Amino acid sequence: MPIADTVLERIRRVTRLPKVALHEPTFGGNELAYVTECIQTGWVSSVGEFVNRFEHDLADFTGAAHAVVVSNGTSGLQIILSLAGVKPDDEVLVPALSFVATANAVRHCGAWPHFVDSDYRTLGLNVDALAAHLRDVAEVRPEGCFNRRSGRRIAAVVPMHTFGHPVDMPALMELAARYRLEVVEDAAESLGSWIGNRHTGTFGRCAMLSFNGNKIVTTGGGGAIVTNDAALAKRAKHLTTTAKQPHPWAFFHDETAYNFRLPNLNAAMGCAQLERIDSFLEAKRELTRLYTEAFADVPDVELFLARPGTTVNYWLQTLILSATAADQRDAILATTNAAGQMTRPVWELLYTLPMYRACERMHTPVADDLARRIINLPSSPQLIPGVV
Amino acid sequence: MPIADTVLERIRRVTRLPKVALHEPTFGGNELAYVTECIQTGWVSSVGEFVNRFEHDLADFTGAAHAVVVSNGTSGLQIILSLAGVKPDDEVLVPALSFVATANAVRHCGAWPHFVDSDYRTLGLNVDALAAHLRDVAEVRPEGCFNRRSGRRIAAVVPMHTFGHPVDMPALMELAARYRLEVVEDAAESLGSWIGNRHTGTFGRCAMLSFNGNKIVTTGGGGAIVTNDAALAKRAKHLTTTAKQPHPWAFFHDETAYNFRLPNLNAAMGCAQLERIDSFLEAKRELTRLYTEAFADVPDVELFLARPGTTVNYWLQTLILSATAADQRDAILATTNAAGQMTRPVWELLYTLPMYRACERMHTPVADDLARRIINLPSSPQLIPGVV
Repeated sequence: MPIADTVLERIRRVTRLPKVALHEPTFGGNELAYVTECIQTGWVSSVGEFVNRFEHDLADFTGAAHAVVVSNGTSGLQIILSLAGVKPDDEVLVPALSFVATANAVRHCGAWPHFVDSDYRTLGLNVDALAAHLRDVAEVRPEGCFNRRSGRRIAAVVPMHTFGHPVDMPALMELAARYRLEVVEDAAESLGSWIGNRHTGTFGRCAMLSFNGNKIVTTGGGGAIVTNDAALAKRAKHLTTTAKQPHPWAFFHDETAYNFRLPNLNAAMGCAQLERIDSFLEAKRELTRLYTEAFADVPDVELFLARPGTTVNYWLQTLILSATAADQRDAILATTNAAGQMTRPVWELLYTLPMYRACERMHTPVADDLARRIINLPSSPQLIPGVV
Repeated sequence: MPIADTVLERIRRVTRLPKVALHEPTFGGNELAYVTECIQTGWVSSVGEFVNRFEHDLADFTGAAHAVVVSNGTSGLQIILSLAGVKPDDEVLVPALSFVATANAVRHCGAWPHFVDSDYRTLGLNVDALAAHLRDVAEVRPEGCFNRRSGRRIAAVVPMHTFGHPVDMPALMELAARYRLEVVEDAAESLGSWIGNRHTGTFGRCAMLSFNGNKIVTTGGGGAIVTNDAALAKRAKHLTTTAKQPHPWAFFHDETAYNFRLPNLNAAMGCAQLERIDSFLEAKRELTRLYTEAFADVPDVELFLARPGTTVNYWLQTLILSATAADQRDAILATTNAAGQMTRPVWELLYTLPMYRACERMHTPVADDLARRIINLPSSPQLIPGVV
């Protein structure tokens, strides 16, 4: 049997459904009750009890000292990059293998992405390879770290926790300290992922979470900034709420800012979703077990599993094809999608996109290889009906 | 009786409530039904039938050929300024008397606001005074209009329809054509306002509507771009949806873009609100009638009414103090707010805010004068219970 047919058959064995999406939200908890409360009380906009509660609950869940909710994850990332000191024409180290938003947020600050290779163990930023690259190109001066090739300052590094698998943050923090780089985590995919007992997004100076419709917890659209830095949290809140100074009626704004507060309507949904995250996580672990079992005897494919010492949210279940089966990837994608079992490749390598082709980058053999070998499988928690 | 007490007494005569907000939304239509439909079907995020329907309904209502919904009005304004050709270090003519978002959106494009005086007849941009100012400082060259004082290009003008009262758009369009300026309308406050039978926002190249919680139609938070320019609408949609090229599974993005699509959850609320806009408008006209009556015999205050030839949404009811009573403004604000009848002054003049103090501006005697004399009154449509 061709490998594409085998993969389809094994996915069906797990999903037991004729048609299944890659990741769909599930709203069996208090979502409707809380949203109804917003509508009935009239509190739907950027001030309301659910906005404050969602921030409190997110800080509580992640262990971050502060959470500031925003209407959009990319915008949130732009704001914290800027608060971490990224200036126009700086460079920011970002993974070559990431969703385009990571690089876009850097550009929205006027800075330039500088692409980094991946790690086979984490699917994220390769800390050892980055260390070797910085040895080659970077120079630490009193004003910060500089790229000798481009002449630009390298202001920060943005690890992204791919599909929920944590980057090796302790090693990255050490490297970043050595090169005086700010660490801003793109934790869009990793709510519910820990290294030891420390939640992703709480290692760097600050992090951004996403609640887009396909995420483990959704608000329809939105995100949150998390940080242990009280001053940064205060600035983030100020900048996302038009920098208005408190006054019963006067409109005094003290800097150029944004109107990026998450509406109460969306925060209400987020509160209800977050109440249920433990069951989502349990369902996703069970789904991983079922896929692992289903693919155990299939040659040339392997389910990507949590590294020892990490707890992974398994946001998207991930199949890694062997090097020899990589040329079957498109056949597998075509067969499974045509049969109603939705699968997806990983993103196009960011340095291949037209707007990022001229950007600085290191050699990216691992990212180049992984980009051909990754297939995401149907991952909705409600595929495990007993749990969710 | 001091004027503050008189004003309070007359407001109470209209509102007949012990405590009343400046503007609150009302959700007595299909809001809950449509939002419930989103939650029950799982379609809450940036793809869904309400997103498409809301765009269709907005185009239909305004008479614009195209509408593109966005998660945030300020962001929408930034995007259309940029699509209208505003480049970093250009200048953009904006009213000195506006909400801070108008100027912020200009800065988010890297351009600079250049402040314009107001018109007593419209509360908006003063076209005659602008014409005189441009005669003084502007020079039209093959590359566009230039400010001789600053050396910068003046790329565009942004009329803002204050509290729903339309700027004199026919005159402004003529002036803009003469100086080769793009016209981008800030119609955040003017959904439901027309000049003749042409809706505000359909005179310039494009416009931005807002659906923040305090607006006549709310989505919790969000906005829409409206335009008759099909190419611009297509670009706006592309730029607000990560510039992803259509493909069943591949992630190919062809430019640096944003993730600013309005979620279906919020669009659902917008559809239900827009179904009811005729009754909101009727209630607001009735409220204007009641306030006019209540203040008819009060010296030194006058309700601001629609100019002949315009239909005004009366988003915020507006009292204009006489020049001699201007020094009573703060007493009126203090007395009414302390008594639970919420009132507000107009915004601080934008050129007085710290980040805009150094910007180019013309003499603004009318804006300076109006800023001391405007008081907004409680304006919620549900203050007229028979209609809404």
